[in-house]
Amino acid sequence: MNFADRLMDKIDEKQSHVCVGLDPRLNQIPTEITDKAVVEYGTTLEAVYHSILEFNKGIIDAIADYAPAVKPQMAFYEQYGHWGVKAFEDTVAYAKKAGLLVINDAKRNDIGSTAQAYADGHLGSPKFWGEQKLESNSDSLTVTPYLGSDGINPFVETCRDYDKGIFVLVKTSNPSSHELQDLESGGVKIYEQMAQLVSKWGEEVVGTRGYSAVGAVVGATYPEEAAKLRDIMKKSYFLVPGYGAQGGTAEDVLASFNDDGYGAIINSSRGIIFAYQKEEYSNDYQEAAKEAVVEMKDNINKALTDADKISW
Amino acid sequence: MNFADRLMDKIDEKQSHVCVGLDPRLNQIPTEITDKAVVEYGTTLEAVYHSILEFNKGIIDAIADYAPAVKPQMAFYEQYGHWGVKAFEDTVAYAKKAGLLVINDAKRNDIGSTAQAYADGHLGSPKFWGEQKLESNSDSLTVTPYLGSDGINPFVETCRDYDKGIFVLVKTSNPSSHELQDLESGGVKIYEQMAQLVSKWGEEVVGTRGYSAVGAVVGATYPEEAAKLRDIMKKSYFLVPGYGAQGGTAEDVLASFNDDGYGAIINSSRGIIFAYQKEEYSNDYQEAAKEAVVEMKDNINKALTDADKISW
Repeated sequence: MNFADRLMDKIDEKQSHVCVGLDPRLNQIPTEITDKAVVEYGTTLEAVYHSILEFNKGIIDAIADYAPAVKPQMAFYEQYGHWGVKAFEDTVAYAKKAGLLVINDAKRNDIGSTAQAYADGHLGSPKFWGEQKLESNSDSLTVTPYLGSDGINPFVETCRDYDKGIFVLVKTSNPSSHELQDLESGGVKIYEQMAQLVSKWGEEVVGTRGYSAVGAVVGATYPEEAAKLRDIMKKSYFLVPGYGAQGGTAEDVLASFNDDGYGAIINSSRGIIFAYQKEEYSNDYQEAAKEAVVEMKDNINKALTDADKISW
Repeated sequence: MNFADRLMDKIDEKQSHVCVGLDPRLNQIPTEITDKAVVEYGTTLEAVYHSILEFNKGIIDAIADYAPAVKPQMAFYEQYGHWGVKAFEDTVAYAKKAGLLVINDAKRNDIGSTAQAYADGHLGSPKFWGEQKLESNSDSLTVTPYLGSDGINPFVETCRDYDKGIFVLVKTSNPSSHELQDLESGGVKIYEQMAQLVSKWGEEVVGTRGYSAVGAVVGATYPEEAAKLRDIMKKSYFLVPGYGAQGGTAEDVLASFNDDGYGAIINSSRGIIFAYQKEEYSNDYQEAAKEAVVEMKDNINKALTDADKISW
């Protein structure tokens, strides 16, 4: 089934537009987890692997009923080399088993056969010997469009062949995103031109519910731009970072939704997985994550209802 | 020592401006290597790991005297999950031991603490427990600038702290690179504006030989653009892909060099590592790689001499 259909079905099932970012910063993982790993494996990368995986499993268990998707941020795994990547792989497998979709936030980009290798590895199936395959990969991947269509087409084809999705960086949530993205060419900003390309790239992978497997990353910190982009990319799902820790509110993300109450999946990472470090939540990291995800889900649903953009 | 100084010293030592791309496409690795791995490890990812590593070691042994650097393309490793990343790590360690610099062509990009995690993992040293560190990483990394300065600064700081380098994508070698990179804003093309940013980002990490640790990726297939970019980024080393298999010639890459005979490192991947598949080279993949790298080195040196851009 088309990725956008799968995502919307999950959103309906959980009645939630929240994506939980799995950014396992080692120094913020509860010490009861890291201490146990160090006792068992020493101060090794293997202990890092076990710490990350156990923490992520705890988060997944806590939030699985309240979110359709998780978004591991690849950098926080990859920095620990192959042990980190193994933690990523096992996290993906665990999340999928728990009924969550996995959006791999890796911002990959390259051209031709190299882009195909990224697409195979993260979304498709890299062939190695005969029929042997590697299949425990993600449902969706973020990609960066600096290289143009050559860098996107291999991903789109893989989305079609394997029912996977991509989210293309269009307007990001960071302060310096204007340096390139807001430049104007022929009276049209770069991010708007990227949006037009995203809309075009997505045409051939539109699902039965009307949205495309080619989505866009649109930062919550720029609601005015989001409204313009919603117009240009009517059929694209938006992956919206910047909620919570980066300053985006439930009102800010409204513009990323269509009037049908769909069209956006809102991510929060630190605000949920490390909620236990804040006074207003439980000291137990799982309980705190659950409290924070339910609160965020309810706030977004309420804002949507108040704006007459109701999904259910 | 500053990365640009280290690179130039290596270029002098080898009298070569050639970078050998390590893109281990499994179906092009000689069957004597893959067959042996499958006999020993079955049709597993572990056999993939051994195939890639043994092939790369053979290439590194063959070319180490004729090239200052190798450029593993991360996608061809990463697609095989953590076993592929392990093959990457062990390749990097082997190449460094053989006296080569390693440019990790991973085109990473993100913001803030996430960019820092990429920088730590690939160039710096991700701290995990106390003084424990991971240090067998690359000398340099390619990065994609779509996110602006927020996405580059953490890498530049890490270059300064660890004597490492980055190459920022400016004008890539692929046909659709024009879609974004050639758009004009205020009469100036995007890739030129990126070049101005690269020049600025590089100012604080200029080495004693006059070049910066912040370089640029400039495709060999666009020599006219390269000449313009050479002017804008006088102190940046260019990493030039597109030679050979993608159509770039020794004459095409001349424009990427400064008059001092430095300023560019020219990459060839398939043209060297899979030269054994072509009639004009040896059937032995190591001998063929040696023949191809020597030929490329000599052709570039001759073109530079003919153009009065002489390094030695």
